[in-house]
Amino acid sequence: MSPPTLGIVDTTFARVDMAQATRETIDEYLTDHDEELSIVRRTVPGIKDLPVGAKRLISQAGCDLVMALGQVGPEEIDKRCAHEATLGIQQAQIATDTHVLEVFVHTDEAEDPGRLRWLAENRAREHARNAVWLLFEPDRLRELAGTGQREGYHDEGPIEVPADPPKEDT
Amino acid sequence: MSPPTLGIVDTTFARVDMAQATRETIDEYLTDHDEELSIVRRTVPGIKDLPVGAKRLISQAGCDLVMALGQVGPEEIDKRCAHEATLGIQQAQIATDTHVLEVFVHTDEAEDPGRLRWLAENRAREHARNAVWLLFEPDRLRELAGTGQREGYHDEGPIEVPADPPKEDT
Amino acid sequence: MSPPTLGIVDTTFARVDMAQATRETIDEYLTDHDEELSIVRRTVPGIKDLPVGAKRLISQAGCDLVMALGQVGPEEIDKRCAHEATLGIQQAQIATDTHVLEVFVHTDEAEDPGRLRWLAENRAREHARNAVWLLFEPDRLRELAGTGQREGYHDEGPIEVPADPPKEDT
Amino acid sequence: MSPPTLGIVDTTFARVDMAQATRETIDEYLTDHDEELSIVRRTVPGIKDLPVGAKRLISQAGCDLVMALGQVGPEEIDKRCAHEATLGIQQAQIATDTHVLEVFVHTDEAEDPGRLRWLAENRAREHARNAVWLLFEPDRLRELAGTGQREGYHDEGPIEVPADPPKEDT
Amino acid sequence: MSPPTLGIVDTTFARVDMAQATRETIDEYLTDHDEELSIVRRTVPGIKDLPVGAKRLISQAGCDLVMALGQVGPEEIDKRCAHEATLGIQQAQIATDTHVLEVFVHTDEAEDPGRLRWLAENRAREHARNAVWLLFEPDRLRELAGTGQREGYHDEGPIEVPADPPKEDT
Repeated sequence: MSPPTLGIVDTTFARVDMAQATRETIDEYLTDHDEELSIVRRTVPGIKDLPVGAKRLISQAGCDLVMALGQVGPEEIDKRCAHEATLGIQQAQIATDTHVLEVFVHTDEAEDPGRLRWLAENRAREHARNAVWLLFEPDRLRELAGTGQREGYHDEGPIEVPADPPKEDT
Repeated sequence: MSPPTLGIVDTTFARVDMAQATRETIDEYLTDHDEELSIVRRTVPGIKDLPVGAKRLISQAGCDLVMALGQVGPEEIDKRCAHEATLGIQQAQIATDTHVLEVFVHTDEAEDPGRLRWLAENRAREHARNAVWLLFEPDRLRELAGTGQREGYHDEGPIEVPADPPKEDT
Repeated sequence: MSPPTLGIVDTTFARVDMAQATRETIDEYLTDHDEELSIVRRTVPGIKDLPVGAKRLISQAGCDLVMALGQVGPEEIDKRCAHEATLGIQQAQIATDTHVLEVFVHTDEAEDPGRLRWLAENRAREHARNAVWLLFEPDRLRELAGTGQREGYHDEGPIEVPADPPKEDT
Repeated sequence: MSPPTLGIVDTTFARVDMAQATRETIDEYLTDHDEELSIVRRTVPGIKDLPVGAKRLISQAGCDLVMALGQVGPEEIDKRCAHEATLGIQQAQIATDTHVLEVFVHTDEAEDPGRLRWLAENRAREHARNAVWLLFEPDRLRELAGTGQREGYHDEGPIEVPADPPKEDT
Repeated sequence: MSPPTLGIVDTTFARVDMAQATRETIDEYLTDHDEELSIVRRTVPGIKDLPVGAKRLISQAGCDLVMALGQVGPEEIDKRCAHEATLGIQQAQIATDTHVLEVFVHTDEAEDPGRLRWLAENRAREHARNAVWLLFEPDRLRELAGTGQREGYHDEGPIEVPADPPKEDT
């Protein structure tokens, strides 16, 4: 059986090269686990071009999973663009029965560019880990179900059983 | 005839393991009613990954009904993600003619984590009951039509016929 | 030729049994006009389950038209759910080339429960009339085009030709 | 070659008969240009019924272009309905590769009913002109590209080349 | 192998002829790079007519990529129209696996008409460059991944590696 194919689609709009961090994490995983994976990468202008870019990676380049990397600007119109891109990515996934992991970093998530760069790269790395788990070890995700994982920042962790649990709706 | 298949898809983002409560309720039902049901479970990173996760359970794993379990964060962007996930779930259902019960708990629905955990588990249980009714006893839902059922909190109940009903548009 | 089939899908969430009012109006029409109609009814948990419920009535139960009956809660999240349900209903209609009449009553449309119940039943009745007209007498709707019909409340009526019509864009 | 077919779908909700103004403009055009056109008209209850009404005119009645005529009420919920109807009309167009010209008049676009009626009829007439141009003379639209046309009100006209054009991003 | 086909769809609503600037940039590129390209152009009334216009250029005129040129008015309803048009364009792309580059200029992006005209033409030119790169030299986009490109205004450039990068989430 040939190895699976991972697609990476990113943008010229973003100010951080998240694809590099993504590839580094994937390469480490492949080495550590002795797995093989083909990677196909495409770059499009902006986040609204990501959905069809992802869909083409699936339907034309045969990708088994796609990571869509993008940066969202700070203005209201940027957030609307991100919303529209997300809806397109939803449609691309439903049409192909294939996961497209959306790795978006929002400019207003960090107070200075250096921190934003760090966050973007870290989020890309943690989603790259999700990607290889979905492809090679889905049970790893199942073990983490309901445990409050957060990509880019500290995990929140699960809510423990309270000492005095509520018994009814009061 | 082989028994129906129920899919459960949940997330690593959630801080409560709603799948466990779901399974307990289903197991009780199956025992009480002497029914059989295959269950397939998948875990994805976040709620925006639930729609394609549900669709894959239907089209690839042959599920007859899917429960999509997720927790929605407290920020505006979390609510937007939930909205986008819901629209994807709508598309998955329309594309497959299959019910995907959306079991979302919102972080701001409860004032402390313990209560949120209780609410999440209770909502999962009540929707698990809806799931088995849709699969085995649709008439049970029909009997409850228009009776103000609420999953997770107290039911509101039906509006009774007023003693002095309005006769016209005044 | 076999008679047409009407689907009715409603929810356990609603606090009023709009299906009963719907059926009464339809039965009266059938008697008065000596027409036949098969009716299939399904109940789902909430309004976000209505779109696939309607689609299943069309694609699996062969319905020629569906009435989707639902009540929308008073909170912002309830309105968002209604919006999402409506978008799903739009998709179900486009996918099947079949009308799904959305009969939603909003909890904040009336100040007390008795009035809300009256409104819900009245709206269901007026949309039931639309349903049978679409199936048996589409010309009845054409005669009312542009006449300001309102389901549930008083009709607004057409805007009459003004005595002194504006001649240009001023 | 048989003449093209134009569909008109309108609502009983609207308070102005925009279909009449539409037909008058089309008839004038056909007479002036010695062209033939079949017209099919359907009426549905409200604007959320227009998308499937338009799609049925295309897929079942063979229309080559549809005009969807509707009036939008003044409340927030009316605007949301219009948004939902528009998204449905987008889907109908994408699914059929056929133009559906949306001719919506908003109740709050005019201060009194007489003026609203005038506006609705004028907008219907100007979009009827677009419809026949799309069917018979697409070059007429191309000649007007970028010229600030407005349906219903005065055209805004093109922006002229400024005497002192900006040379760079300052 | 026959040369690729580029579609251009624009509107009569816009007040700037962005198609001209688009064509000039494309012609320069073709001359400089000794490439051939067929161009098909269509004009529709407004931005909500662009999605199906673009889809028809792909499915009926065989275009390999489409540029959708539009101007968005300054009012809230104009922004909603742009949002709806964008969602339609997303659907057109997903349905055809073909890029539709959305080139929208917003009236409130510039303070005077002359500046708006400059911006519209400049944005059209920069997106025309993206279009030919997608068709002939996709590697050019890949080289610019994560470099903060902006169409119409100055590029923002990449975020440099900070001298003192954050080590962890603090």
